Amino acid sequence: LASKVSISVVLPTVSRVALCGGTHGNELSGVYLVRERLKRKVEEEEHISVVTVMSNPRAVQQCRRYTETDLNRCFTHATLSGPVTDKTPYEIVRSQELNTLLGPKGSPEAMDLVCDLHNTTANMGLCLIAYSDCDWISLHIYRYLQARENNHHRDSSFWMHFLIRVELPIEIGPQAHGVVRSNILSTMQEGVQQMLEWVRLFNSGTPFEGGKVDVYTMVKNVDYPRDFETRGITAAIHPQLQDRDFCLLRPNDPVFQTFSGETLKYTGTEPLYPFFINECAYYEKGIALSLARQRSVFKSGD
Amino acid sequence: LASKVSISVVLPTVSRVALCGGTHGNELSGVYLVRERLKRKVEEEEHISVVTVMSNPRAVQQCRRYTETDLNRCFTHATLSGPVTDKTPYEIVRSQELNTLLGPKGSPEAMDLVCDLHNTTANMGLCLIAYSDCDWISLHIYRYLQARENNHHRDSSFWMHFLIRVELPIEIGPQAHGVVRSNILSTMQEGVQQMLEWVRLFNSGTPFEGGKVDVYTMVKNVDYPRDFETRGITAAIHPQLQDRDFCLLRPNDPVFQTFSGETLKYTGTEPLYPFFINECAYYEKGIALSLARQRSVFKSGD
Repeated sequence: LASKVSISVVLPTVSRVALCGGTHGNELSGVYLVRERLKRKVEEEEHISVVTVMSNPRAVQQCRRYTETDLNRCFTHATLSGPVTDKTPYEIVRSQELNTLLGPKGSPEAMDLVCDLHNTTANMGLCLIAYSDCDWISLHIYRYLQARENNHHRDSSFWMHFLIRVELPIEIGPQAHGVVRSNILSTMQEGVQQMLEWVRLFNSGTPFEGGKVDVYTMVKNVDYPRDFETRGITAAIHPQLQDRDFCLLRPNDPVFQTFSGETLKYTGTEPLYPFFINECAYYEKGIALSLARQRSVFKSGD
Repeated sequence: LASKVSISVVLPTVSRVALCGGTHGNELSGVYLVRERLKRKVEEEEHISVVTVMSNPRAVQQCRRYTETDLNRCFTHATLSGPVTDKTPYEIVRSQELNTLLGPKGSPEAMDLVCDLHNTTANMGLCLIAYSDCDWISLHIYRYLQARENNHHRDSSFWMHFLIRVELPIEIGPQAHGVVRSNILSTMQEGVQQMLEWVRLFNSGTPFEGGKVDVYTMVKNVDYPRDFETRGITAAIHPQLQDRDFCLLRPNDPVFQTFSGETLKYTGTEPLYPFFINECAYYEKGIALSLARQRSVFKSGD
């Protein structure tokens, strides 16, 4: 018989926070949040040092995801330590600059918390993404934001999720790329304020209670059906699945509707949770949606 | 005293119809509708000759609005008759090719009806746009589609409008550029089928009753508030205006919310109808929304 074990985790102070927007130049909530902070020269939020960064200014200027290669895929040790020549893509050069500014990755000088602000065309609400379910800081922040959200917006149709995937920290949608929507920007602004508030409370020794957190762990990506020869897509997300991110997808549920009108169903045997449904930027990556398993993590208090 | 005068308009047969998609390469409903027709080699729809065209294949391949210049702004007599050199932007060369294929503009060989399929990120539903309120064919088609829509989708939240502006014929939204949504694609497919159905009935001599049609006539464009020096935008569409295309905007109604949280109100004295609210591609054109006057046109029967 398993017995419940209480784990005590010692976490260091979060003294250096980086706030990044425009990692993808056409995801405008982060772009305008960061631009506004830079304009008002906000460098300190009640004793936390916050470094505000426009990650990919060249892509922001062109209002494109990236100019030569996806910046968000450049933060590997190989790319960060590779040689730079005249022909090196701009984003690789920029990733090395950012690594110097915010890292170096894995060093003791690195930022304690990097909050990277993204938008998605998927109906994902506010979604925090972490590397693992042992990322206690992110789990605590998530719980804090969730509690605040429940208190303040009981009637709101806006919801939050916590997702484990190797990449990105905060996604918010639905918002078309290249567009800024006030409500989405306000929600992101509030989320960032609450995150910084949590960091302040945490640093000042405020105890946070432990408890259950539902997390989603990425299982796999699903591509669009494609034409064998041209590789062009031959179907769109089915209307019954569109916008239903984080709603359980069961075997035989509709997934795609082909351009000739046929319905294609989910052939998996395990019910899973879809997310990033119909994200614009993932057409080129061969991802129509991703699937996750949900489970509960019992997070200890501090 | 004005007396009601019945006008009889003689309209020639609509024997040559062109169906264009991908005029903007990232507006995917038209792209996939056209691609599917080309794949199935649909060239004749019950005795109407329909020329199906992918307007800007290079922009479609890159999933961008355009590669060098906006194709939709190239169809002026000056551009269409200008010289072509090695340095001429691709879209200008392509506009001349299209003019040869579908026109020449103003000539007796020109298509009788060019249906150009577009998407918008604005919540405009299905919107037919015509050059003037004397465009009887478009007004008839609009009435026909509207009647069909009322019969078939009484519960649908989808709605239609008829807009007079110098440009484009069919817009449908909201849909993020670079994304295809099944429901939007299906609505466009149905709209196109009904338009062709109307053409068939019209050509075979079916009489259509006259009556009142509400049309919107463009009055002016409104730009975002901008930073005097950088020209960057300093506000987004106000949450109370976002998605309320074709809902009356009255003096003192909120229009923008600045990034620092201030509300900016409509300072005009005439209530007007907003449309193209927060259209992605119009940020670069300096258009946050357009304003129209609504009025009724009494369309005669044939």
